[in-house]
Amino acid sequence: MTPQYFNRRDIDFLLYELLNVDKLCARPRYAAHDRGTFEAILNTTEALAVDLFAPHAAKSDAHEPHFNGQSVDIIPEVKTALKAYVDAGLMGAAFDEDMGGLQLPMTVTQAANAMLYGANVGTAAYPLLTMGAANLIGAVGSPEQKQKFMRPMVAGRWFGTMCLSEPQAGSSLADITTKATPTEAGHYLITGTKMWISCGDHELSENIVHMVLAKIPGGGPGVKGISLFIVPKRRVNGDGSLGPRNGVALAGLNHKMGYRGTVNTLLNFGESSECHGYLVGQPHQGLAYMFHMMNEARIGVGLGATMLGYAGYLASLQYARERRQGRHADNKAPDSPQVPIIEHADIRRLLLTQKAYVEGALSLSLYCAFLVDQQRTETDAARRDAINLLLEILTPVAKAWPSEFCLEANKHAIQVLGGYGYTRDFPVERLYRDNRLNAIHEGTHGIQGLDLLGRKVAMNNGAALKALAAEMQAAIQAARKVDGLAPLAALLEQALGRTGEVTIALQMARKDKPRAALAYATVYLDMFGHVVLAWMWLRQALVASAAKPASPAEKAFYGGKLSACKFFFHAELPKTAMQAAFLKSLDTTTLDMDAAGFAPE
Amino acid sequence: MTPQYFNRRDIDFLLYELLNVDKLCARPRYAAHDRGTFEAILNTTEALAVDLFAPHAAKSDAHEPHFNGQSVDIIPEVKTALKAYVDAGLMGAAFDEDMGGLQLPMTVTQAANAMLYGANVGTAAYPLLTMGAANLIGAVGSPEQKQKFMRPMVAGRWFGTMCLSEPQAGSSLADITTKATPTEAGHYLITGTKMWISCGDHELSENIVHMVLAKIPGGGPGVKGISLFIVPKRRVNGDGSLGPRNGVALAGLNHKMGYRGTVNTLLNFGESSECHGYLVGQPHQGLAYMFHMMNEARIGVGLGATMLGYAGYLASLQYARERRQGRHADNKAPDSPQVPIIEHADIRRLLLTQKAYVEGALSLSLYCAFLVDQQRTETDAARRDAINLLLEILTPVAKAWPSEFCLEANKHAIQVLGGYGYTRDFPVERLYRDNRLNAIHEGTHGIQGLDLLGRKVAMNNGAALKALAAEMQAAIQAARKVDGLAPLAALLEQALGRTGEVTIALQMARKDKPRAALAYATVYLDMFGHVVLAWMWLRQALVASAAKPASPAEKAFYGGKLSACKFFFHAELPKTAMQAAFLKSLDTTTLDMDAAGFAPE
Repeated sequence: MTPQYFNRRDIDFLLYELLNVDKLCARPRYAAHDRGTFEAILNTTEALAVDLFAPHAAKSDAHEPHFNGQSVDIIPEVKTALKAYVDAGLMGAAFDEDMGGLQLPMTVTQAANAMLYGANVGTAAYPLLTMGAANLIGAVGSPEQKQKFMRPMVAGRWFGTMCLSEPQAGSSLADITTKATPTEAGHYLITGTKMWISCGDHELSENIVHMVLAKIPGGGPGVKGISLFIVPKRRVNGDGSLGPRNGVALAGLNHKMGYRGTVNTLLNFGESSECHGYLVGQPHQGLAYMFHMMNEARIGVGLGATMLGYAGYLASLQYARERRQGRHADNKAPDSPQVPIIEHADIRRLLLTQKAYVEGALSLSLYCAFLVDQQRTETDAARRDAINLLLEILTPVAKAWPSEFCLEANKHAIQVLGGYGYTRDFPVERLYRDNRLNAIHEGTHGIQGLDLLGRKVAMNNGAALKALAAEMQAAIQAARKVDGLAPLAALLEQALGRTGEVTIALQMARKDKPRAALAYATVYLDMFGHVVLAWMWLRQALVASAAKPASPAEKAFYGGKLSACKFFFHAELPKTAMQAAFLKSLDTTTLDMDAAGFAPE
Repeated sequence: MTPQYFNRRDIDFLLYELLNVDKLCARPRYAAHDRGTFEAILNTTEALAVDLFAPHAAKSDAHEPHFNGQSVDIIPEVKTALKAYVDAGLMGAAFDEDMGGLQLPMTVTQAANAMLYGANVGTAAYPLLTMGAANLIGAVGSPEQKQKFMRPMVAGRWFGTMCLSEPQAGSSLADITTKATPTEAGHYLITGTKMWISCGDHELSENIVHMVLAKIPGGGPGVKGISLFIVPKRRVNGDGSLGPRNGVALAGLNHKMGYRGTVNTLLNFGESSECHGYLVGQPHQGLAYMFHMMNEARIGVGLGATMLGYAGYLASLQYARERRQGRHADNKAPDSPQVPIIEHADIRRLLLTQKAYVEGALSLSLYCAFLVDQQRTETDAARRDAINLLLEILTPVAKAWPSEFCLEANKHAIQVLGGYGYTRDFPVERLYRDNRLNAIHEGTHGIQGLDLLGRKVAMNNGAALKALAAEMQAAIQAARKVDGLAPLAALLEQALGRTGEVTIALQMARKDKPRAALAYATVYLDMFGHVVLAWMWLRQALVASAAKPASPAEKAFYGGKLSACKFFFHAELPKTAMQAAFLKSLDTTTLDMDAAGFAPE
């Protein structure tokens, strides 16, 4: 059997049956498109993913980028794949037509990206970072900056990075020390060191455009003094041609457990030669600009996590269908043939848990992308506000939940393969290593929890939570009327009610006991995420219940959706009751503990 | 700060305060020992672990064993460390004096091994496998076999392996095809292929003694036809000197995600030259013999998993104490100094969860070793039966629970270090990779679940479960009388009652619905394990409550035990209520699902 890295049938289900993404074409921004152009981009990407991305994923992992003394060596398959990606126009897929893009909905481009992530996340990271950087210039750059820097990125000639963290400042951006000193010529001189910079140096593109957070002397303290700069690897002449090297130097490569195909760097700015940076937008607004783009970046990270889990699921499913081992408990005749392991109950549990996690996570990723598309195109102010609220409250979940639970799916995929799964002969161990990163970068799991409990559920007097509850109620009411789904609707309603109670209790407690109320924000995040995922599954089940399958394969597909939904409600959703009780207890064991009691120093 | 791989204070607490292991010296088998000889062996092992095992753990991982065309190359530090280990007499620590051993209690030797596992599990695996193989000969070999094969192993001159799995038969040993053909000379000719053989070929010892499961033609079907053989790498002359190479050939090395320091092999027997094997015990009893040794091997795997988690915990604790990042929520003054991250609530949650997992698991591992020591030396038949029952029912938990939850601890350790934890510059990612193996080998997680629910809790009309419940009740009754522990005692009593109910419900259901009753045996195992661990924590808390600490450090140590216990009861034990309800529902979603519904083939 051919290896599978994604499930195109599921992607189509989500796009056209769950989200009805083609309805977006009625909006002016997407009027040039129809289902045909969506299919074309998905088919092109699917072919690239299978033919040029997937084949070198294992090789990229085994031969990670290294510095040859002059530049960074990366296996040649990466450049070949990315050239084909650029030549197909995919780098510009989501960008505006006036920047040379195709102006496709984000829902569609994310679905296309999903296939690339499943096939080879290490290579797919280069365009991902580039699109993020270009997006940022598009949102806050000057017209000149857009022409000079963004356009070559949209065309795929130049790649981009995000330079936020420093060795001493990861989650705490208030403490960055990179400095930007104004010059009379108009540019700034950048000095400092940036850490964990993905795609920070390579020869895959003609130039690299770094989006750098730095402080202009005299600015406010902490985050209030942070500004955003464009810092190219090579300077750019007035006519757009490349000038001399800018003072950005590779100070080292980070050697990671996974995600090895993506070069990860320590960069020095302005250490041995002048480093020119160009202020983007207003001074001291850098962090606000970054936050502006963060929703999309975080949804993208969640999608990457999802697809690593999804690829592992499909690999373990294929193995379970082919591998014969053991017999059923009620037939131990040792001379009877062994059965495919997919017939064993525990293997089925491992597979169905994975399916519930990864297909649930993919529906959430694409739903959030769909919200972004609606946000961009909604003309009614009240509706746009509601969409904004949904996006705000769902973004930490869309980032964090797949990072946690699709990693768990990867763990299960290894288990299905047993000893073979633990070897580098099968992809599942690599996918597990790759996925461990996602709970760390783009805001750790803990940061997402604080974002959700400390900001999002409380904002505007709980308006975002109310908007989300209204959406969930719509699904609950619809499911009440459907045979087989009514009991699940009742379970979700209970869970939603409980979530509301816990939220209120914790928000009340913040007045008197601010530390205790937020101490288990991560547990709240995991609980909240499970409720959101249950809702996503109920929505999928509503579509599957209403479907009229035209073939046995289609019948099995919809049946699989219903089984996964039921399993998630029976085996996973009840966890939230336990979490809710724990959160309401305002336990302070961790806060009270004497730090010396962990272990002797 | 010096890196730590284990916590000697905790080991001493468990040995002398929780288990009172020195009381074993009153029994004839251990009469030659006292706390002084225990301390000597622990001190010797501690020094070896720190000086010779730990320093090459990262190097072993980066430079895994490879076949040079003639033999297997392993970095020289491994041989140096193992020579020092053997020279110190540690290989024979647990063996009988008449075999050249020190006849120490298993509780003490396991505590010593724990330090080696924490320091470098890849190197420690060689003596572990050797001791297991020697034990097997000791238990069922002939006096001549003991002299000829076991004695050089106890002396550490020869190493050993266990050869059970084959490429087509992992969990299903009934389906092995390796053949043993009798000869007139008395030996058997072995032909076949064995897979996943740890320590299967190397130049670390003068000889390698493989314990091989094979079928003698004409034997019964399935597991009934399996016999056990000694198959040396080099044949052994009558006087014990080494003869020519036997027909055991290295067919390949397995390249794994972790545990890379331990060479893992595919071995061909009798392919290009004659392979002599020597029958151990009676024909067709091979599997029974293996099972006889399996309790100890499984407890050993659990201990290894525990110490990988423990080493990760200590590394992340050290990092959390040193790394400064961010400020408290109620002090955001950006010019105030950053706080050590151990002050952040979510970091504390990650640390305390790890502590509850790894210290709980270590107490269970050593408690089980203590049961083995009692079993060996108990003269009262009724008491010995009770101990046997406890060991039978606890072994799957002692193997599986640390493999699952100390891996989770490793995941948390990475999270504490953030991006740094994901790099190979810190040990936490390696420990995470290493630990992923433990849920797979020596009986998968699923196999342990079936062993527990399908056999152990039902055996002798539930006698093992009753024996365990009686032990738990003793701790519950003691804790009722202790300030602060009474509420925990009540929680454990509830959980124990619930476990009994679920067990009865599932056993009843086996009559009518055998597949449904066992379908979620793994969930049962996880639930059962949490109840066992809660009991272990309550026992530790009883000791800590009664302690009279003589210094602030000691006060913090006992306080830490109480905090970890409380946290386990508040944040972890409630999960078992959810699992119990799920199990009682006899959900059949996984069994009913059409396999085609997972995803299109």
